[in-house]
Amino acid sequence: MTSTTLAAPGGPDLAGLLVRRASGQPLESVLYTSPAVFDFDVTAVLARTWLFVATEAEVREPGDFVTVEVGPYSVIVVRDDDEVVRALHNVCRHRGARVLAERSGSVGNIVCGYHRWTYATDGSLLHAGDQPKGFDKSCLGLKPVHVRVVAGLVFVCLADQPPADFDEVVATVSPYLLPHQLHRTKVAAQVDLVEEANWKLVMENNRECYHCEGGHPELICTFFPTYGYAEGEIPARLQPAHERYLRAEAALEETCDKRGLPYAAVEDLDGRVSAFRVQREALDGAGESYTLDGRAACTRLLGDLDTPLLGRVSLHTQPNAWFHVLADHAVTFSVLPLSAGRTLLRTTWLVHEDAVEDTDYDLDTLTHVWRETNQQDSVFCARAQLGVSSPGYQPGPYAPSEYQVDAFITWYVDRAREHLAR
Amino acid sequence: MTSTTLAAPGGPDLAGLLVRRASGQPLESVLYTSPAVFDFDVTAVLARTWLFVATEAEVREPGDFVTVEVGPYSVIVVRDDDEVVRALHNVCRHRGARVLAERSGSVGNIVCGYHRWTYATDGSLLHAGDQPKGFDKSCLGLKPVHVRVVAGLVFVCLADQPPADFDEVVATVSPYLLPHQLHRTKVAAQVDLVEEANWKLVMENNRECYHCEGGHPELICTFFPTYGYAEGEIPARLQPAHERYLRAEAALEETCDKRGLPYAAVEDLDGRVSAFRVQREALDGAGESYTLDGRAACTRLLGDLDTPLLGRVSLHTQPNAWFHVLADHAVTFSVLPLSAGRTLLRTTWLVHEDAVEDTDYDLDTLTHVWRETNQQDSVFCARAQLGVSSPGYQPGPYAPSEYQVDAFITWYVDRAREHLAR
Amino acid sequence: MTSTTLAAPGGPDLAGLLVRRASGQPLESVLYTSPAVFDFDVTAVLARTWLFVATEAEVREPGDFVTVEVGPYSVIVVRDDDEVVRALHNVCRHRGARVLAERSGSVGNIVCGYHRWTYATDGSLLHAGDQPKGFDKSCLGLKPVHVRVVAGLVFVCLADQPPADFDEVVATVSPYLLPHQLHRTKVAAQVDLVEEANWKLVMENNRECYHCEGGHPELICTFFPTYGYAEGEIPARLQPAHERYLRAEAALEETCDKRGLPYAAVEDLDGRVSAFRVQREALDGAGESYTLDGRAACTRLLGDLDTPLLGRVSLHTQPNAWFHVLADHAVTFSVLPLSAGRTLLRTTWLVHEDAVEDTDYDLDTLTHVWRETNQQDSVFCARAQLGVSSPGYQPGPYAPSEYQVDAFITWYVDRAREHLAR
Repeated sequence: MTSTTLAAPGGPDLAGLLVRRASGQPLESVLYTSPAVFDFDVTAVLARTWLFVATEAEVREPGDFVTVEVGPYSVIVVRDDDEVVRALHNVCRHRGARVLAERSGSVGNIVCGYHRWTYATDGSLLHAGDQPKGFDKSCLGLKPVHVRVVAGLVFVCLADQPPADFDEVVATVSPYLLPHQLHRTKVAAQVDLVEEANWKLVMENNRECYHCEGGHPELICTFFPTYGYAEGEIPARLQPAHERYLRAEAALEETCDKRGLPYAAVEDLDGRVSAFRVQREALDGAGESYTLDGRAACTRLLGDLDTPLLGRVSLHTQPNAWFHVLADHAVTFSVLPLSAGRTLLRTTWLVHEDAVEDTDYDLDTLTHVWRETNQQDSVFCARAQLGVSSPGYQPGPYAPSEYQVDAFITWYVDRAREHLAR
Repeated sequence: MTSTTLAAPGGPDLAGLLVRRASGQPLESVLYTSPAVFDFDVTAVLARTWLFVATEAEVREPGDFVTVEVGPYSVIVVRDDDEVVRALHNVCRHRGARVLAERSGSVGNIVCGYHRWTYATDGSLLHAGDQPKGFDKSCLGLKPVHVRVVAGLVFVCLADQPPADFDEVVATVSPYLLPHQLHRTKVAAQVDLVEEANWKLVMENNRECYHCEGGHPELICTFFPTYGYAEGEIPARLQPAHERYLRAEAALEETCDKRGLPYAAVEDLDGRVSAFRVQREALDGAGESYTLDGRAACTRLLGDLDTPLLGRVSLHTQPNAWFHVLADHAVTFSVLPLSAGRTLLRTTWLVHEDAVEDTDYDLDTLTHVWRETNQQDSVFCARAQLGVSSPGYQPGPYAPSEYQVDAFITWYVDRAREHLAR
Repeated sequence: MTSTTLAAPGGPDLAGLLVRRASGQPLESVLYTSPAVFDFDVTAVLARTWLFVATEAEVREPGDFVTVEVGPYSVIVVRDDDEVVRALHNVCRHRGARVLAERSGSVGNIVCGYHRWTYATDGSLLHAGDQPKGFDKSCLGLKPVHVRVVAGLVFVCLADQPPADFDEVVATVSPYLLPHQLHRTKVAAQVDLVEEANWKLVMENNRECYHCEGGHPELICTFFPTYGYAEGEIPARLQPAHERYLRAEAALEETCDKRGLPYAAVEDLDGRVSAFRVQREALDGAGESYTLDGRAACTRLLGDLDTPLLGRVSLHTQPNAWFHVLADHAVTFSVLPLSAGRTLLRTTWLVHEDAVEDTDYDLDTLTHVWRETNQQDSVFCARAQLGVSSPGYQPGPYAPSEYQVDAFITWYVDRAREHLAR
């Protein structure tokens, strides 16, 4: 699981592939299909950057935990007795058993089911039965994983030294998120979808809406299909939508200005390790939420918000997440790679912690648009995986409105080159 | 996916294996089991020779298409608006998505489901939405695959330069096939069977009938079990069958001579790239068709044939097909490798385009013998795959009546050596 | 499938891993997870040592056979017409088909289902149809596998030269086993359980009872949880159990002394190739058998035994087996590796050949404890496999009572080093 695997005769010539990657188009086949490249991706990219893996709403009380797999890694995210959210390798320090097998739950201590080694929720080893004198518990705690909670969103980094530039990102994006008080939400629904595609294709699919008009009938009820188009490049058929967009944006800006909410786009999708994009943007239709008519799906708004007409805070973080934070609910998306050709997409719908199902929101209405959209995307991603696996595949040109896909791939190539240069 | 993979330390020593392959016996274990060898087979053998993949009957009207997978390749076979059958890589020129996901169907244009890039049935790109000025559609058509239609049978070649000797083969075999007018047939049934065996074992199994007496009770009602035996080597127990064979052959030759139909065997199974064998031979029993009593399964004969007593035109083509063309119907067999240990066998029963089910033919009767025979063969092939995977396996001697198996393996080794020498 | 695979650039550095393995702790991740290491294990360890694969009770009559897979190998264990148990590679000498596809059965001759090559039960080729003059059957028999029957237990060795030290082991363990006359038993039940774990983790799990108190409620009704603890290291909570153990042992020794039955522990788990441990030990509860109350599960005792109070003969053999031989029944466990991450555990319950189900024994009662225990262990092993697959895994210290786990791993490392040194 090191880059030397790739330098080996017979392995893919990763360095060569990266050097010759042309800007403005996808990667070559082997980078989406090879198990050796997948190992490289885990080591060089995924384990060296901040990954979004959970929400605070999933670990509200001390002892609440979720477990998350990132390739071969398994990480416990747990709220410690001191209320701090911690992340720990889910690997017993005795003989390596997976400590917590459940996807989520609540514990007093963390007890390995195999030989009952018992850890505190901060990872320290409390008890290991029948050891000799001089047995030193202090160096046998569950290994910590770096963790950051950003306005209710939990990020981890598996590297010894996480990228330092994350602080700036947190400072930039927090003002957009904080008014929605995601730390005071609860999980209304969570859906795990296994996509038959490389994680990079799942990310690429998210980074453009060039496929939305043809592919996402529910989504485009509220998501402007002009997404990604530069002002001067709006095609004629989208002009009516664009005019609605301009009007909706003007109204949104006024609403935001009154409340001191930031909305301007800040975008740095390939210029740094912790690359990101944030913006508050208007929605089409009634403009309130991701529903078929655009009206709010939850009558209890997030935080102390006083209007549902706040559009969507759209946050993209490289390499594995995107978020839509609305007035009435939020949806988070976490891409968790499983193998070269399989990827878990975990989608979580958050509502105000006091919202009551069937009173304040109907679960089907709340989740309908993104359940359908995810399902449609999983078909697209699987077809992309099948296609790029053919020796007849040759990377073609990204359309102008796919510039964020290009940014993602450029970012990936930069991380990979950086790692090879180490 | 190149031969360098195989020259790598740690990979199988393919060159050595090929050099030391002894004539008259199967290959060594790794050549049937290794994923690296499978990749080599695709690159060196399957993608450089003519493969039988479909029948014209499957694409009768303009816009009719089938998709076929050959290892990692996916190919669209489509009848163009000008009635010509074309073959195209099933890979979008935008970001590589598989364009047509269905196994067969009918289209006006070929539209990629992902971003709606739209191609004509000749592959040319008609439309790609929202591109910048200067976008050049002309070089972004679906990549063509070489295609040849031979008396209603569709062959493709994935190489840039297909083997030139195919013309001679076409010239030789066409007179045997043309009287049956396969281009004027329809598909009565098509069955896909996934065999748990390397594609070469599936081919080896087809190239002999040494296993027929014990293994194919339905087939040997009409298929003479003396197949593959040289005249002087007929075992005593098969003498009665042989005498029936000689009588049936004499009658068949007379029938053919009257009608000017060729029947003599032409065999060149390992002396050329486009190796083949063709012959019209008599059937046992009533001598008309592959049924339990040998009587015709379809009362509407193919083409303008005036008698059901025309035996079977047996055509073998390396590396992936065999055919039985009778007076009343035809059966085609296409071997489509999936991975080192899995192979798709596609079997297609063709009848006259005007034949009416339940009036002219009963589908169960028509397909019974080869459905049973294929099923029996899939058990044999799976057992062969399991056996050759054992380190206790050592190639043993082919029996004399298995000489065509030896020819197939010799042909394979020649192709592999040729590729390594490039 | 040779060690050169592992020396290849890009492959795991097996030699390095073995040299740096620290005593007192498990192996590093790749040794439990890599397919290349699995191939090495088969070649270097499993195919060079004596493996327990069956019991004589499974092949009681001439022609009775079982087939056993060890990694890619398949072996026929068959009782020959002369009553001798033989082992043969389950690979036809013609084209390598698996000869016998069934897990067990009874045959006159061994007939390959593919081309009807027919072998005697000693492996010699009796008949191969339609061969040319001069065809020499004498060198085309099924390849023999070394086999030894030890007091009713069948061991095979796939090497050309099996380890010579097995004779001493047989001489040592036979006096413990022979009074139970396992050759005069029948199979009451046999259960195959596929564990999602490397075979070495399945073995490690068996070699300690550090997990029994928490993990095996049924087993510890009769299995003393003090197993593996040195006299001076019994933890306080186990003192009551230890005192019961000492009393039970004293009674057992008296019973054995009266009958001339050996009971002392003989242990050489890592000092030789054919490493083993044998001991007769007392059981807790009623002390007779593996039941919830410790009473015998079968009223018909094995052999000519005159008391059920004979505890358990516990036999461990490296690398793949353990046995519990009681007065009323015996249970054998055979670890049959399938792939790097999957292992078959075959458990066989033997009772006296004249015992009658529902009269002398109730099958559920007889098998309950070990069915439950195996199931619990399979969960533990799967969790271990998942855990050691994480890059966050680091081998931790074995507890003192896990000294036999350490011995197994030490033995494994010695065999691996020996092979690399060849």
